[in-house]
Amino acid sequence: MSERIVRVNMRTQEVKEEPVPERWKLFGGRAMTSAVVAEEVPPTCTALGPANKLVFAGGLLGGSAAPISGRISVGAKSPLTGTIKESNAGGQAGQILARLGIRALVIEDQPADPDKRYTLEVRKGSVRLVESPELKGLGNYDTVAELVERYGEKKVGFITIGQAGEMGLTAASVACTDREMRPTRHAGRGGLGAVMGSKGLKAVVLDDSETQMRQPGDKEAFREASKKFAKALKEHPVTGEGLPTYGTNVLQNIINEAGGLPTRNFREGRFEGASKISGEAQHDVILERGGKIAHGCHSGCVIQCSRIYMDKDGNYKTKGPEYETIWSFGTDCCIDDLDAIAEMDRLSDDIGLDTIEMGATLAVAMEAGLAKFGDANAAIELMKEVGRGTPLGRILGCGAKVTGQCFGVAHVPVVKGQAMPAYEPRAIQGIGVTYATSTMGADHTAGYAIATNILKVGGYVDPLKPEGQVELSRNLQIATAAIDSTGLCLFVAFAVMDKPEAFEAVYEMINAFYGTSLGPDDVTELGKAVLAMERRWNEAAGFTSADDRLPDWMYREPLPPHNTVFMVPDEELDQVFNFVE
Amino acid sequence: MSERIVRVNMRTQEVKEEPVPERWKLFGGRAMTSAVVAEEVPPTCTALGPANKLVFAGGLLGGSAAPISGRISVGAKSPLTGTIKESNAGGQAGQILARLGIRALVIEDQPADPDKRYTLEVRKGSVRLVESPELKGLGNYDTVAELVERYGEKKVGFITIGQAGEMGLTAASVACTDREMRPTRHAGRGGLGAVMGSKGLKAVVLDDSETQMRQPGDKEAFREASKKFAKALKEHPVTGEGLPTYGTNVLQNIINEAGGLPTRNFREGRFEGASKISGEAQHDVILERGGKIAHGCHSGCVIQCSRIYMDKDGNYKTKGPEYETIWSFGTDCCIDDLDAIAEMDRLSDDIGLDTIEMGATLAVAMEAGLAKFGDANAAIELMKEVGRGTPLGRILGCGAKVTGQCFGVAHVPVVKGQAMPAYEPRAIQGIGVTYATSTMGADHTAGYAIATNILKVGGYVDPLKPEGQVELSRNLQIATAAIDSTGLCLFVAFAVMDKPEAFEAVYEMINAFYGTSLGPDDVTELGKAVLAMERRWNEAAGFTSADDRLPDWMYREPLPPHNTVFMVPDEELDQVFNFVE
Repeated sequence: MSERIVRVNMRTQEVKEEPVPERWKLFGGRAMTSAVVAEEVPPTCTALGPANKLVFAGGLLGGSAAPISGRISVGAKSPLTGTIKESNAGGQAGQILARLGIRALVIEDQPADPDKRYTLEVRKGSVRLVESPELKGLGNYDTVAELVERYGEKKVGFITIGQAGEMGLTAASVACTDREMRPTRHAGRGGLGAVMGSKGLKAVVLDDSETQMRQPGDKEAFREASKKFAKALKEHPVTGEGLPTYGTNVLQNIINEAGGLPTRNFREGRFEGASKISGEAQHDVILERGGKIAHGCHSGCVIQCSRIYMDKDGNYKTKGPEYETIWSFGTDCCIDDLDAIAEMDRLSDDIGLDTIEMGATLAVAMEAGLAKFGDANAAIELMKEVGRGTPLGRILGCGAKVTGQCFGVAHVPVVKGQAMPAYEPRAIQGIGVTYATSTMGADHTAGYAIATNILKVGGYVDPLKPEGQVELSRNLQIATAAIDSTGLCLFVAFAVMDKPEAFEAVYEMINAFYGTSLGPDDVTELGKAVLAMERRWNEAAGFTSADDRLPDWMYREPLPPHNTVFMVPDEELDQVFNFVE
Repeated sequence: MSERIVRVNMRTQEVKEEPVPERWKLFGGRAMTSAVVAEEVPPTCTALGPANKLVFAGGLLGGSAAPISGRISVGAKSPLTGTIKESNAGGQAGQILARLGIRALVIEDQPADPDKRYTLEVRKGSVRLVESPELKGLGNYDTVAELVERYGEKKVGFITIGQAGEMGLTAASVACTDREMRPTRHAGRGGLGAVMGSKGLKAVVLDDSETQMRQPGDKEAFREASKKFAKALKEHPVTGEGLPTYGTNVLQNIINEAGGLPTRNFREGRFEGASKISGEAQHDVILERGGKIAHGCHSGCVIQCSRIYMDKDGNYKTKGPEYETIWSFGTDCCIDDLDAIAEMDRLSDDIGLDTIEMGATLAVAMEAGLAKFGDANAAIELMKEVGRGTPLGRILGCGAKVTGQCFGVAHVPVVKGQAMPAYEPRAIQGIGVTYATSTMGADHTAGYAIATNILKVGGYVDPLKPEGQVELSRNLQIATAAIDSTGLCLFVAFAVMDKPEAFEAVYEMINAFYGTSLGPDDVTELGKAVLAMERRWNEAAGFTSADDRLPDWMYREPLPPHNTVFMVPDEELDQVFNFVE
């Protein structure tokens, strides 16, 4: 079955299919979503209005036997940042969408009646909208339960939004079900759940029946490259050992030790309670309670950084939680209680919220005096307000910037309106460059300088000095844009940066699959092309170098324990995209 | 006494005085506030952080015998729009500040303890800060009552903020007392009250004791020019008859008739209840109840468009209310009850809120379903929420954009985050050009195209056609920037546009006062210079042509009754500032 673009008009309910145009032939994942947004969405449009488009795309290697290649990209104009936005997630959706031969699923316009809710059923040979009044107002867990009732739980993947997306809150996420049919894998950043909500789309059902694994053009070469790739991932200490054993939260102690763990609303770089919520502590609690470590968030994962977290009675509570989540609800709010954090993670997944944005928001709310730092019960109650859609909940559900605005807090850690993740730019200067300049707003995944600043992967650049950070961030942003387009999980980058054979394997898999003859430079060129597309669209939307800055207090207030400020000069920040005309 | 710049550091409590530098010699009002902000405030700073500065400046002719020359300009980086901001007000403050020989009063930095409140006492020969814990949390009326208790009510003027400014809400205004010592004259737009609040400054006391009227260099020439100016104002039908008799609200019927009166959150251009809240109806109610028409908001006013509004029992309720206020709380919310509107005006003055922003916000809230259009009691309750600082009140107090964001409303009439005033760009295209391109966000006073589009002052340009609007708006924006720098009330523009002798009198008064020899071109050059300064600073703050646009739905959704959209092409909008390099 040849690949195609599927377009669904939410006003007319028409579904159109078209072949993948030649210019998009080698675009998958982020390259695909950003290309559709860049070419088709007016940069100055209202993000929750009819002119915005919501795009789903698996990666170039999605649906194939390539290891860990099942990420799904979700793209649109972000209602949180106003920038172009790609947010990607694990779960099963990416693989199924690719196996259905759909390179991009584009949701257009919006229903005349904003109270209508729809489910989009996507099957082999059929794409159609059905009205779903019964799903209105449900959280993601209940939504998925209803969908399972109707569509079963075998050979199916769901993409849903919770109450936050329906309310149009700008911290709303898009949830994808994992292998256990739980809505735990979220395209969290940038409020894309609100875009989905603005289109009346409550759920997408991806039916995997009668599909087959996508087959490469050159099976033998593909098998070889895949094997080489999997081997490199297994051999690297981060992807082969650290991540499967302790999960992403292996970072809690490491970043704390480095003095770059944002604590108490980015007032300090070290948290006295970090060890109690570290990956090591989490590992023990999970095993004691019969949970699961070394779990894959989607079929085909060979890293297995996901985990399943049980409550005190040994019943399923939530996935992970991930490092970013444990940091945001834990460290940044000074809460050193894994169960409380798991509760907030579960609430976020259910209401459909970005955990990074929400934790950072609660910390701003605590600074405003709405709760005391460290008060887990108060924090959980605040999260519940969001689900109920109270005025306070709506403020919080719009993220850290709006919360700061409404409560008169000037110390708000955002870039382009999006909350910073779990790394302090004043102690880890390289990540500050990425936060400041990323086309997406503050986003660690856009150019994960932590790898080289702290983990010494791909070399070493001193995190406390401004020198070399711009080049580091630039190279990482380019590489990331390319990886995000393959469907490969970004965590492959640890091996790719350290092992030449891992990097080779990436383009060899693509070449074997598509009959191309890409080399290393082509990967770089793809990354540059994606960033250039995004950057130009952002410019047309009104973004300038003045937006590529950290909040002014990060240049002024020294951060303990290193007592450093952010030191990379503006002129250097303006050189990150020196390859874009 | 030679004129000087007075700087007050709110962290150190130091007061510094310096002579007016040569380059600012002919800068008053807006030219003065914008020059200080442009030269001294980092464009990308946090508006409610220590790097912002709040500047008060009377006009070049302030404190003199020139008719209607007592406006006060307040400037800062706006926390609402992120742009440079000048908002000016009537009341007594402008005259007294000028008579004290203070060309600009610059409030810098902020106290280490954000819970502290200060009063700045400004007297002849002395400027000092005193702690004022007793004023904390008071509305403007109670604050003024306390100040009167302490400082008396003769020969004194107060500048204060209400609860909104203390809470840092971005619709917060700065209030100036009128001749009756009531806090009714507000620098409303752009949230400057929040900037004042962020500096811990609750009140400024301007003591007029031992001051004298400022004397011109050439008394005879000044007297002649002043007489000529006053005569022209008296003879023009708008300033000599329409405004004194019916007040600014004379526009309600006129704009309704033109089909350009934004109704029901900018869904329609005509309001069925307009006549019930028109200037004519208001005139009768005021006189019946023993109120006052033809009242001046400050000493030296010869137009007298202010009025005093009594309640049903004949007791003082509020000033005006003005046209913009009656439109915002009335028409835009479909409330045709003058007493309800007066109640909301009084609440706005007391809590310290911009009535334009708040009415537009209530209309957005009504569209979100928080109240029914036309429900006056519900609207009044919503206003009270703002004063109480409830979460809902804080949302509303942050203005229309945040309210739309929190409640998922995409149909929000803002430009650069600031709510549009009482004229519909789709029916009056010229004002749309001003809203889109003004350095201040949506602002009718920045280039009042209504004059020529509707009132046929200064010629006529068809309001329903895109042709000629850019030139009209450009010329008006230039003239306005100049007038706003003189301290003259903008309403003099009706006479200045129609009567050559009125325009001559403006620069003749300045020449006679300062010993200069300005001609008409110099006035234009001053206006251009002010706009260029503002525009360049905005660019450095990150604003581009993409921000010089109306909301996308105004280009798409036709407005009844004319069923027109906004038609001025982007390329033409980008020519408004063709004189700025």
